[in-house]
Amino acid sequence: MRIGILGGGQLGRMLALAGYPLGLSFRFLDPSPEACAGQVGELVVGGFLEEGALARFAEGLDLVTYEFENVPVEAAHLLAKRLPVLPPPKALEVAQDRLLEKTFMQSLGVPTPPFRGVEGLQDLREGFEALGFPALLKTRRGGYDGKSQALLTSWEEAERAFHALGGGGLILEGYVPFQRELSILGVRSRTGEVAFYPLVENRHQGGILRLSLAPAPGVSEALQRKAEDYARRALMALDYTGVLALEFFQVGEELLFNEMAPRVHNSGHWTLEGAETSQFENHLRALLGLPLGSTAPRGYSAMVNLIGLRPDFGEVLRLKGAHLHWYGKAVRPGRKVGHITLRQDRWEGLEEALPRLVALAQVPVGP
Amino acid sequence: MRIGILGGGQLGRMLALAGYPLGLSFRFLDPSPEACAGQVGELVVGGFLEEGALARFAEGLDLVTYEFENVPVEAAHLLAKRLPVLPPPKALEVAQDRLLEKTFMQSLGVPTPPFRGVEGLQDLREGFEALGFPALLKTRRGGYDGKSQALLTSWEEAERAFHALGGGGLILEGYVPFQRELSILGVRSRTGEVAFYPLVENRHQGGILRLSLAPAPGVSEALQRKAEDYARRALMALDYTGVLALEFFQVGEELLFNEMAPRVHNSGHWTLEGAETSQFENHLRALLGLPLGSTAPRGYSAMVNLIGLRPDFGEVLRLKGAHLHWYGKAVRPGRKVGHITLRQDRWEGLEEALPRLVALAQVPVGP
Repeated sequence: MRIGILGGGQLGRMLALAGYPLGLSFRFLDPSPEACAGQVGELVVGGFLEEGALARFAEGLDLVTYEFENVPVEAAHLLAKRLPVLPPPKALEVAQDRLLEKTFMQSLGVPTPPFRGVEGLQDLREGFEALGFPALLKTRRGGYDGKSQALLTSWEEAERAFHALGGGGLILEGYVPFQRELSILGVRSRTGEVAFYPLVENRHQGGILRLSLAPAPGVSEALQRKAEDYARRALMALDYTGVLALEFFQVGEELLFNEMAPRVHNSGHWTLEGAETSQFENHLRALLGLPLGSTAPRGYSAMVNLIGLRPDFGEVLRLKGAHLHWYGKAVRPGRKVGHITLRQDRWEGLEEALPRLVALAQVPVGP
Repeated sequence: MRIGILGGGQLGRMLALAGYPLGLSFRFLDPSPEACAGQVGELVVGGFLEEGALARFAEGLDLVTYEFENVPVEAAHLLAKRLPVLPPPKALEVAQDRLLEKTFMQSLGVPTPPFRGVEGLQDLREGFEALGFPALLKTRRGGYDGKSQALLTSWEEAERAFHALGGGGLILEGYVPFQRELSILGVRSRTGEVAFYPLVENRHQGGILRLSLAPAPGVSEALQRKAEDYARRALMALDYTGVLALEFFQVGEELLFNEMAPRVHNSGHWTLEGAETSQFENHLRALLGLPLGSTAPRGYSAMVNLIGLRPDFGEVLRLKGAHLHWYGKAVRPGRKVGHITLRQDRWEGLEEALPRLVALAQVPVGP
């Protein structure tokens, strides 16, 4: 089986590494000749909407998936005329639009922070009247890792941000004080089989994920079930195939939906060592209609992203239970170039080693 | 870092898959354009002693290792003039000769079954007088997976086998009734750091490994320490770097050395899921002088080889805790084309699922 992946970044790379043992082969489509997945599989360099590139990419593939959710939906639709494209393009469409995804989840009865679409200053003003300050103004489309958004505390800031963010195509979200950010990965096979990984706690800094703890400490069984229930609704409503990531804010025993990613997700990287079956393998199993692998955690894991820095590999690997994942990318400020997972049989062991892990990744410590 | 691997089979393939997360890249040298490692890395097609191929292979590499122990030692020596070749070619030399390896281990005080070199009929006759029947006659060089050997119970058989096996360059080994075959993997880093995996029980059929249980059930701490001691002697005497596999016969609380492999080993495949760090990653860490990863087992594992058959992947993956490793090779009778590892937290869980695993791999059941 030859799998095509739209996007050639680290997620594609890790999908391929997980897929080779299943006898699969991989081809990537990416606009950059430097795309790091090209080191481990065939790379077609070209734009997602370039006809020639799409044709070269699609030639002889059995199946297409994506590792990047800002792939133009049109590209997915074009490919879907010729061969299966999974997850379904509909999921891509929903996930690419912050207003659409929140409206969608709300329609499934999943709570979200309050929000309003903003197309003009009038909408903005009405939004603030309804939601109050502080609030978040975000572009509906594009932007990730905390880009393209502003936290607003006054009308003056709001007006400035409104223009800076393009003067329309925006979403205003009420600010909800929350305890922490949690995410869940659900996976649904072509056969309809569904599985969930345990909730993960995610700590961001400057909008970029820095640290995940898996399973998230102190999660009640009821909360886990609630997250699974919410994720299941999304999987079913989208007739989804593959791994779907949902991010939530935890407020007491409630989960407010924040955003989704219709693909393997950074907050699931811990599964490479910390779960019986990784998110990457389960995504592929799901696409192929193979039985899903156990999502049970093996002990306790922490994952830190390596952002714009290359640690001393020896220092990293000296830490017992640490596993390095270097993506083979050039190091640039703010760029995710790798991650480290630390796996321990006991929570106490993880807690003890965590400061060292966080220091290796230079995760900023702070409130 | 660019690593060159002599041989492009499944061991090379799995080394590469383990090495990409460490930021390494790989080039293989193999006489066959079909070599399955070529699906996951750069393949130079050529003979191990072909000057042009060796030059193309060596160009720009930082380090050379091997995944196939019948690489001509001369090739290793030629390459060693230009760049580090690890494990040291000396180890290759010793391991390629059954008489040399047994003599070598004996010289380190490691017990072996009784053996004699056989160059002529006179040696053969004297050998039988000393060792008695039954005995094994093997070629000193070449042959693996039980090829190139004969179990002898009479002088007539012996004479026939002597001629069939080439009439010289042979080793005669006394037959020792043993409880089971065990193997240990030792790994030594360029820095001198040493680590050992737990003893593994191996069941062969027709000379080919069919099933490994890891850790081997019912191994006393003393026996594990003994195996480690024996392996350590070999590692030190060879000034070894990388993973070294030693196979033993267990006779009560004694271990008789049978053979060694200066490379990652089939009996260590379970470490991919069953140990904190796989043999493949630790081999690479060792070559690079990086700290070794923990060799601690995670629960209980069984590994079966897929020999000359392609099971239904869905059937395999339906078994919870099963992990498929398909090598991307064409299926031919007697050919190792993949393996399955089954990992369970509890021994009882493993025991329960073992019959299903063995059935999937069509492991012959017998005495």
